[in-house]
Amino acid sequence: MPHKLMRMHRTDTARERPVMLAIVGDSAAGKTTITSGLVRALGPERCTAVCVDDYHRYDRQERKRLPFTALHPDCNYIGIMEQHLQLLATGHPVLKPVYDHHTGTLTRPQYVEPRDFVIVEGLLPLHTKLAAACFDVTVYLNPPEEIRREWKIKRDTTQRGYTREQVLAELARREPESAEYIRPQRRRADVVVRFSAVRGRHDPPGTPLSAELLLRPTIRHPDLSAILAGGGSSMHLTLTRDEDGRPVDALHVHGYAPREESRMLEKAIWAGLGEGTELPGFLGELDGGQRSESLAITQLLLLYHLLEAAR
Amino acid sequence: MPHKLMRMHRTDTARERPVMLAIVGDSAAGKTTITSGLVRALGPERCTAVCVDDYHRYDRQERKRLPFTALHPDCNYIGIMEQHLQLLATGHPVLKPVYDHHTGTLTRPQYVEPRDFVIVEGLLPLHTKLAAACFDVTVYLNPPEEIRREWKIKRDTTQRGYTREQVLAELARREPESAEYIRPQRRRADVVVRFSAVRGRHDPPGTPLSAELLLRPTIRHPDLSAILAGGGSSMHLTLTRDEDGRPVDALHVHGYAPREESRMLEKAIWAGLGEGTELPGFLGELDGGQRSESLAITQLLLLYHLLEAAR
Repeated sequence: MPHKLMRMHRTDTARERPVMLAIVGDSAAGKTTITSGLVRALGPERCTAVCVDDYHRYDRQERKRLPFTALHPDCNYIGIMEQHLQLLATGHPVLKPVYDHHTGTLTRPQYVEPRDFVIVEGLLPLHTKLAAACFDVTVYLNPPEEIRREWKIKRDTTQRGYTREQVLAELARREPESAEYIRPQRRRADVVVRFSAVRGRHDPPGTPLSAELLLRPTIRHPDLSAILAGGGSSMHLTLTRDEDGRPVDALHVHGYAPREESRMLEKAIWAGLGEGTELPGFLGELDGGQRSESLAITQLLLLYHLLEAAR
Repeated sequence: MPHKLMRMHRTDTARERPVMLAIVGDSAAGKTTITSGLVRALGPERCTAVCVDDYHRYDRQERKRLPFTALHPDCNYIGIMEQHLQLLATGHPVLKPVYDHHTGTLTRPQYVEPRDFVIVEGLLPLHTKLAAACFDVTVYLNPPEEIRREWKIKRDTTQRGYTREQVLAELARREPESAEYIRPQRRRADVVVRFSAVRGRHDPPGTPLSAELLLRPTIRHPDLSAILAGGGSSMHLTLTRDEDGRPVDALHVHGYAPREESRMLEKAIWAGLGEGTELPGFLGELDGGQRSESLAITQLLLLYHLLEAAR
């Protein structure tokens, strides 16, 4: 058999490999919001978005009898997720399982072909080393727990038909598995994004959130010095230490800065990307038509990495 | 990315590769009957059976609007079938799509792990060269069309709720695609099996079918000379030419031979396999409790190949 199998590698080497980005974080950490802006900016014709939270081993009914939640790796076909990420990363299509959030059932799988860019969002894409190795850029969304709780209550009560009490109970039930399986993926991220109010400031309610982006030296980040020199109060970069003591650049994007200043910065970054078009207005868009300039700048930084990796 | 991706090959080389057998042929050619005897003989704990007719791109409703039948490669995810065969052949699990024959819908996929032996049956597993290269042994079932028609009418009217007229209409509709896509796979088979009455003999109705097994020199077949020497009228081997003129051994298993003679042969072949147990009575079993000694001998020959390849 081995001599026969050797033949099958021939086609693999000829395949175009996509640029792969992982957007990872706990439930309601903002993954879909970031992803949808990136897909629109790149154009759906050259971008494939995949949510890997569909690799459930059990449907909703079966999960009721289990001693763990959907966050647990044993509740998911993690090996198959890893395999499908490897296939996509090497330019192959996959038949992705589909979980229907409305009925809570596993349904007809979906044929997914990698375009130039593949954006993978989900709870566990960085759970294993092999899965993490499939990505060119990895992002971990790390909002403070009280903000994530608000976001989750808002989404699950308005879009998924749960009551506030049910969401709070589910958050409590998931907490130990979140700590054990979701949050440790932070260490595998090239960029850690934290949307929050700035500590120590007492901005009035309604002030847009700021963002802190930890830029790890695991990938080459853009040289922001020229842009930052004209950036006024919108953004600054500090050399600091991560939770574990490792040196890291922290990019602070200030939600309280005047919008015009932030927009100037965004235009400068967009122009540097060489797409040759106007800055798209939908970058920074939140659900319900609101805007966040710190989200826009985060998306622009990720676009920089995607386009850079494609070169 | 390339340096990251190199890591993922490490685990692959360490994986145990299964022995892969393909049982290929048109609808109702006898694939499932042969397969189920092999699975029972090897034991389900060391054997995985996979039907690759579930890789439908469209469900029954969608197919009604299409200009081709389910036999057409474009009606199936052939690329994904090929990918899954490659994964199984290299020891990896797959999440196999599932087509529900009762409802005509695509449903929840199934996790399939390759055991020591993987038996793949279906309409198109030898359609592409890369898919065919995944197998250690390939078998094409080639009954005369009038026999296959009888088998299909019997099965589809008793087990799948169709009328005789519907089955005949479907056979006519499928014939061009059968000629174009199914039958050409015969050339990729190591063994071609033809169950039929012996031409030129006028055996009484009810005489069990004989079998002609073309043993192509693409794999190493067992030395049957010692067994055949004591075989009486049950079996003989002739050197002949295939349809295309290529030399081939033809093993003739005579359905009209006395059952005791055939059973002696079967016991001798089974003993040679070294399983150390009694000849299993279910080899040669047909639907509805009937027996066919030519089926039993065909299964024994395939067991020889499977066990030989595993050594």
